[in-house]
Amino acid sequence: MKILALDSSGLVASAAVVENDITIAEYTINYKKTHSQTLLPMLDELRRMTELDLHSVDAIAVAAGPGSFTGLRIGSATAKGLGLALDIPIIPVPTVDALAYNLYGSDKLICPIMDARRNQVYTGVYVFRKGAAVDAGYDMTVVEKQCVADISWIVGQINELGADTEVLFLGDGVSVYRDKIAELIQVKYSFAPACCNRQRASCVAVLGAVLYQQGEIETAAAHKPEYLRPSQAERERAEKKETGICQ
Amino acid sequence: MKILALDSSGLVASAAVVENDITIAEYTINYKKTHSQTLLPMLDELRRMTELDLHSVDAIAVAAGPGSFTGLRIGSATAKGLGLALDIPIIPVPTVDALAYNLYGSDKLICPIMDARRNQVYTGVYVFRKGAAVDAGYDMTVVEKQCVADISWIVGQINELGADTEVLFLGDGVSVYRDKIAELIQVKYSFAPACCNRQRASCVAVLGAVLYQQGEIETAAAHKPEYLRPSQAERERAEKKETGICQ
Repeated sequence: MKILALDSSGLVASAAVVENDITIAEYTINYKKTHSQTLLPMLDELRRMTELDLHSVDAIAVAAGPGSFTGLRIGSATAKGLGLALDIPIIPVPTVDALAYNLYGSDKLICPIMDARRNQVYTGVYVFRKGAAVDAGYDMTVVEKQCVADISWIVGQINELGADTEVLFLGDGVSVYRDKIAELIQVKYSFAPACCNRQRASCVAVLGAVLYQQGEIETAAAHKPEYLRPSQAERERAEKKETGICQ
Repeated sequence: MKILALDSSGLVASAAVVENDITIAEYTINYKKTHSQTLLPMLDELRRMTELDLHSVDAIAVAAGPGSFTGLRIGSATAKGLGLALDIPIIPVPTVDALAYNLYGSDKLICPIMDARRNQVYTGVYVFRKGAAVDAGYDMTVVEKQCVADISWIVGQINELGADTEVLFLGDGVSVYRDKIAELIQVKYSFAPACCNRQRASCVAVLGAVLYQQGEIETAAAHKPEYLRPSQAERERAEKKETGICQ
C-alpha cells in the first residue's frame, strides 16, 4: 500500500511517500516561509525525484489538526485536491498522535506540546506497548487524548501518574514552556533531540496506515480539519456579539 | 551550532541541516537512482529552500561507514569538498550508530542490520540510558560495536543477553534476513516501522553534535571513510595474488 502524507499543522512543512515498511521519500522544512509557498513545490520535488506516478498512490494521509489554522487549511486543501483528482480516500491523522509517533517503541510517557498561542498548548499523552506475540510491534496507546489546554494542566496530569513515571516531551511548545515544565514537574523528564522532536510526514503515513486498517478514512469531499477551538476571527466575532458591537 | 549532515551509506540518500535542537531541513530519498545523481541536487534544494548561507555551517557530519563502498565514497567526497571549501571540520559518524539513533529513548536493545552482501551484515547493538539528572537526556551506549558479521552471530550475541531481553531491528537488512532472524532468535523482538527504520541525516547530525562535543572531529583533508572490510576489487586482487594469477 502506498501512502502520500502531508503535515503542515505547525511551523514545519513535511511531505512523504511511504510504501508498506519503506519510506521512499521524505522532505521536511522548518523555515520561515509559509506553507503555501513550500508544501506543493516540496511534493512536486519528491514526485520528480522518485518518478512517482500519483495514480499509484492508494490514500492521502494528512495531519488533520489541531494546529495552526492556516497551516491546517493548506494541508487539508492540498489533500482534498489530490484526493478528488485521484479518486482516493483521505486518512485524517490526529496531529498530536502523529507527533508522538516520532518516539516509536519508547517505554516512557510521550507528551507532545505544540504552542497554541494565548497561553495554551495542543497536547496529549501517549505510551507504546508491545503486542502479545513474541514478534509483535508496538501499539500506541492514548493516555490523554489530544486537546487544547494550559501547560500546567497537562503537567499536572503527568504528575498524577506517580513518581515512577518518566516522560519525554517534544514539539515546538518545548522552547516556549521549558522553564514552566521544569518548575511544575515532579517526575523524571527530558526533551527529544532534533532528529525526533517535530512533525514528520512519514510518522503521519505510518500512523495513517494503522488508521486505514481500522477503516478510519473519509472521502476527499467530506474531509475537513479538526481545529479543536474556534479561530481568532470566530472568537472575536462572538465577543463582539456578546458586547453588542456586532449583530 | 549548525551542522550539515549527509548519509549515503546504503540505499538511502539523506541530507539535513540541524541547528542546536531544531532540524531546519531534511530530505531523504530511497529510490533506485545512484547517490551521485541525487545527493548534491538534494543538498542544493535544501540550501535554496532554506536560503542557507553555507558559510554559516560550523561542521559537516557524514555517515562515514560501514556501508556501500560507492555510497560511502560519494558521501565522504562531498563532505571533504564542502569541508575544504568552507574550512570547517568533518565529524565522521559511525553509520550503524547513526541508524540506531532512529529509536532514540527506547529502552529495548536496538540492532541495526544493513545488508553487506556475501551473506554478511553490517550491524551492532545499542541501548539508550537516561543520564543521572532528573531532566537528563538519553545517552546511547554501545553494547556491540559496529562490525561486519554473519546474521547468526549477531542474533547469537543478543540471545546470550538473556530471556528478558527485548530487541528492535531496523535497516535494509531486515527484508533480507527477516526469516533467518525469526528462526534463530530466542527473545522478544520486532521490526521498526517505515518512519524510523532507515538512514536519516538528522540522526547523523544529532549524533555528530555529541561526537563534536567529545572532540571527535577531523580535517577535511584527513577524512576518509571506514569500510570495515576490503572492497570487491581489493579482495579479488588478493585472491588472484594468492593463486598466482596476478603478481
